[in-house]
Amino acid sequence: MTPERYDRIRKTLEMRQPDLTVITDEVYKPHNLAAIARTCDAVGIPKIHCVWPRDRYRLKTAATAGSSDWIEVQTHADIETGIRELQDKGVKVVAAHLTDRAIDYRDYDFTQPTALLMGTEKEGVSDVASDMADEHLIIPMRGMVQSFNVSVAAAIILNEAHYQRQAAGMYDAQRLPDEWFDRLLFEWCQP
Amino acid sequence: MTPERYDRIRKTLEMRQPDLTVITDEVYKPHNLAAIARTCDAVGIPKIHCVWPRDRYRLKTAATAGSSDWIEVQTHADIETGIRELQDKGVKVVAAHLTDRAIDYRDYDFTQPTALLMGTEKEGVSDVASDMADEHLIIPMRGMVQSFNVSVAAAIILNEAHYQRQAAGMYDAQRLPDEWFDRLLFEWCQP
Ligand SMILES: C[S@@+](CC[C@H](N)C(=O)[O-])C[C@H]1O[C@@H](n2cnc3c(N)ncnc32)[C@H](O)[C@@H]1O
Ligand SMILES: C[S@@+](CC[C@H](N)C(=O)[O-])C[C@H]1O[C@@H](n2cnc3c(N)ncnc32)[C@H](O)[C@@H]1O
Repeated sequence: MTPERYDRIRKTLEMRQPDLTVITDEVYKPHNLAAIARTCDAVGIPKIHCVWPRDRYRLKTAATAGSSDWIEVQTHADIETGIRELQDKGVKVVAAHLTDRAIDYRDYDFTQPTALLMGTEKEGVSDVASDMADEHLIIPMRGMVQSFNVSVAAAIILNEAHYQRQAAGMYDAQRLPDEWFDRLLFEWCQP
Repeated sequence: MTPERYDRIRKTLEMRQPDLTVITDEVYKPHNLAAIARTCDAVGIPKIHCVWPRDRYRLKTAATAGSSDWIEVQTHADIETGIRELQDKGVKVVAAHLTDRAIDYRDYDFTQPTALLMGTEKEGVSDVASDMADEHLIIPMRGMVQSFNVSVAAAIILNEAHYQRQAAGMYDAQRLPDEWFDRLLFEWCQP
């Protein structure tokens, strides 16, 4: 490991945001999960939460999502358990979801502890997740197609979270607890 | 065709932006091209420009990209021809490209006639495209991975173009020339 590499790893860890995450509600296409994980890394999200589809895609998708070297993946048995666990820790769960109660994603305050919930490719956010979510967010569209690709929608919203947190100075000093920071530093420095 | 559907088609066409487009420099994965076309529809882009890879992916990718019902695709023999044709019409070609001369994409004025150039999945923007581009744009990142997925990067930048044009009132009155508008209206109303 070169000193430059070590330095880059430390600097990246110093910008990680323990109170920003994504929770996927049966998103199953490997390329979508991979693109979401890559965007999470880019905006400083250390860990994501996933509920796998109940069908034959389960194993395949779980394998792919775990393949990201820089993002930790916590699996939940079902979306209800995942959302409740986050909310019990004081994290707001906001669903990217095209409903009447949805607000423009730029009007949400992303400096709060937040989990962005993304719906599955075909059916979108499940009813139980929709009901439990603290807020619904919408990205305005002007075309004939009714929704964005799921990894595209996640990126547009996470990029907004990135800028809000940057403006609030949240990338300027270490935010990961020491124990988590040291564990990741150790793991990322392994050859 | 219901009156509601006809109305929706007209309203969408009234927001189409003839002077905003994307040009892909050998992007070849079908799901990426599909996601890019879908985002273009969402921000009101009527037509995109594509240069297909020179290898075995050529036919497969060309087929997929053409499958979007709402976006026209113009193919160019090579990227040089594509860029020159756009620039000759007074369109600025701005490459999403991580170089030293790149500016933050939010500092570019997207109300100008603009073609956003996206590089291929592995190698990125080609040298000739990089040289010919009027501007290089970068999306700041804070992670270990060096780039976003190409359809994600396109969406983040096009979403910014969307808001700039919205603020400038560019979606408030028909901008397509009548001939183009009428042709699309006719085509979209076919069963
Ligand atoms: C392909 S969409 C699912 C579409 C589904 N037919 C629906 O109506 O929800 C997959 C996910 O992407 C997100 N998404 C896509 N477009 C969005 C938009 N304009 N605003 C908010 N979220 C969006 C949502 O999380 C959605 O569940
Ligand atoms: C996967 S990237 C190519 C990566 C390639 N190794 C490189 O260095 O250019 C595919 C395309 O996405 C766009 N892209 C990805 N991340 C970007 C960023 N942070 N800023 C600007 N464009 C980006 C560029 O057009 C790039 O050519």
